[in-house]
Amino acid sequence: TNQEMRQLAEQRQTQLTKPPGSLGRLEEFAIRLAALQNTLQPGADRVHIAIFAADHGVAAEGVSAFPQSVTGEMIRNFTRGGAAINVLARALNASLEIINLGTVHDTQALAHVRHCHLGAGTANFVHQPAMTWEQLSQAFQAGFETTEHAQQTGQQLFIGGEMGIGNTASATALACLLLNEQPERLTGRGTGLDEQGIAHKITIIARALSLHRPQTDSPLDALRRVGGFEIAALTGAYIHGAQLGLPLLIDGFISTVAALTAEHITPGCKDWFIFSHQSSELGHALVLKALSADPLIDLQMRLGEGSGAAVTLNLLRMACKLHNEMATFSEAQVSQQSELS
Amino acid sequence: TNQEMRQLAEQRQTQLTKPPGSLGRLEEFAIRLAALQNTLQPGADRVHIAIFAADHGVAAEGVSAFPQSVTGEMIRNFTRGGAAINVLARALNASLEIINLGTVHDTQALAHVRHCHLGAGTANFVHQPAMTWEQLSQAFQAGFETTEHAQQTGQQLFIGGEMGIGNTASATALACLLLNEQPERLTGRGTGLDEQGIAHKITIIARALSLHRPQTDSPLDALRRVGGFEIAALTGAYIHGAQLGLPLLIDGFISTVAALTAEHITPGCKDWFIFSHQSSELGHALVLKALSADPLIDLQMRLGEGSGAAVTLNLLRMACKLHNEMATFSEAQVSQQSELS
Repeated sequence: TNQEMRQLAEQRQTQLTKPPGSLGRLEEFAIRLAALQNTLQPGADRVHIAIFAADHGVAAEGVSAFPQSVTGEMIRNFTRGGAAINVLARALNASLEIINLGTVHDTQALAHVRHCHLGAGTANFVHQPAMTWEQLSQAFQAGFETTEHAQQTGQQLFIGGEMGIGNTASATALACLLLNEQPERLTGRGTGLDEQGIAHKITIIARALSLHRPQTDSPLDALRRVGGFEIAALTGAYIHGAQLGLPLLIDGFISTVAALTAEHITPGCKDWFIFSHQSSELGHALVLKALSADPLIDLQMRLGEGSGAAVTLNLLRMACKLHNEMATFSEAQVSQQSELS
Repeated sequence: TNQEMRQLAEQRQTQLTKPPGSLGRLEEFAIRLAALQNTLQPGADRVHIAIFAADHGVAAEGVSAFPQSVTGEMIRNFTRGGAAINVLARALNASLEIINLGTVHDTQALAHVRHCHLGAGTANFVHQPAMTWEQLSQAFQAGFETTEHAQQTGQQLFIGGEMGIGNTASATALACLLLNEQPERLTGRGTGLDEQGIAHKITIIARALSLHRPQTDSPLDALRRVGGFEIAALTGAYIHGAQLGLPLLIDGFISTVAALTAEHITPGCKDWFIFSHQSSELGHALVLKALSADPLIDLQMRLGEGSGAAVTLNLLRMACKLHNEMATFSEAQVSQQSELS
């Protein structure tokens, strides 16, 4: 990122007709976007949202409050415009792309879905690696293509999202491997487990960790062993987006685990991450902390689909507009702060 | 507010294609707006913003980091579209009204300002009451007219804002009187005082309290003695807005003190208040607590002008759109949560 542009943006903020620092974190994010986008006029008007969906073999262990059929049903809902992310993308005038990486129920018949079928969901990682190296590579490729496309079409910001019954279990196991944590510290209620459901989910994840932890020899291998197709695609999208210099607005727990994985695979790519919100999923705070991330808002959301990032986007847009459009003290002939305050 | 409509809105939230509760506080605010607006389709698209400006006699005591001329200069900046609230109002497509209640420097020559000249600022409340009963009544009237106008023109939400060098000192003194607090607990840096400046501001407020506390016999009298014209107008706008059944989005410290004053004068009007943000002004948290308020966001803003409320507005708009536009489980034929989770 561009240090000179950061300094110019910082300077401009002190010249705008407001007490210095009084726009708080909106100043911080405008300055950061100016540096990332290497421009005096940062913006977040042109935004692409890619939602990655896939099924998880570990769903067979009863780790979700919803039946596995919901992954395919929600993909259909995405194509018909009825899901939360559809409403948000329309309101934000953002382009929205749905990528199915492999579900139990076939969705080939649906229009407006990009199909990258890697299998009928991942294998159950309690018994074996979730995916093959070939599948991991293809999922990465699917992710690469979304940020590549976003950059080529002149987008100023990229939002990745996910859908997949069982994917908090997968993301939790992955975070445990990467951060060398125990599942008790990271396992939450996902889409709505009760206490008993959480206890069972912890047992399942602990069993998977005892199989994979001794054999995992890299962050990439951790992702292959306990990740999901959509988590791998998100990770790929983040890695490639950072390479391309595209600011990436990160959503909730699962997206943040993908961001953590990307940072472990290619250290430094987190410079391009903007963390949108603190979700109410138990493990999110710990994973954010591992990334030294301080998200903009906490609305106790826990939906996924990129929805928290989408909800936060308007705050970034406001930050940019204030930075670009406010008058300076000299333009407006407004007196500045007194020497002796 | 309408309890039946609240229940219908709560019911609808459980039927939308998402895990119950997963939109967090966005659900809470959509439900609340549905009840306040008495409709199945709550909205925050049509919004009026009124900015009340005035000068403060107490500025003579050196309680602000900026010279007093800035009040008039900022009014001119508002009329030319260069201030933060101008940028935000344009981005939000909200109507914006500037009301000058009395400044040291005349602004009569400026177009696009409503003039309700109550004097060249308030009297210095260290020595005497800030205003007469007549001035208080006229300031109230100016506030009444803004919410009256908003309701008559079909606005769905009202944002009040303020500008006036010295007005954190006034708001702090007022909160001390209403909450029977000492100034040390509530006095902050305003537009940018250093530690020495804050210590001096505390001394000034303490001196004013020792004069007025023994004589103050009602919340209205407290407002008259240490308030400002713009704080009184805001208080009037809130009281009348609540009477009219217009949801009121409250900004930062000074607006929250006006909201507190309104609630002390006419208990129950806080049902119509939606608290937007937690500012970084020291006393804000305590005043919010006195109102049992839990604002939506904390971006460490401390600008005033209604800017924090304006920045938060899009979150309410998103909450409403999600509530109104998402498909239900039955519409989208998506399976619901399993019996045994």
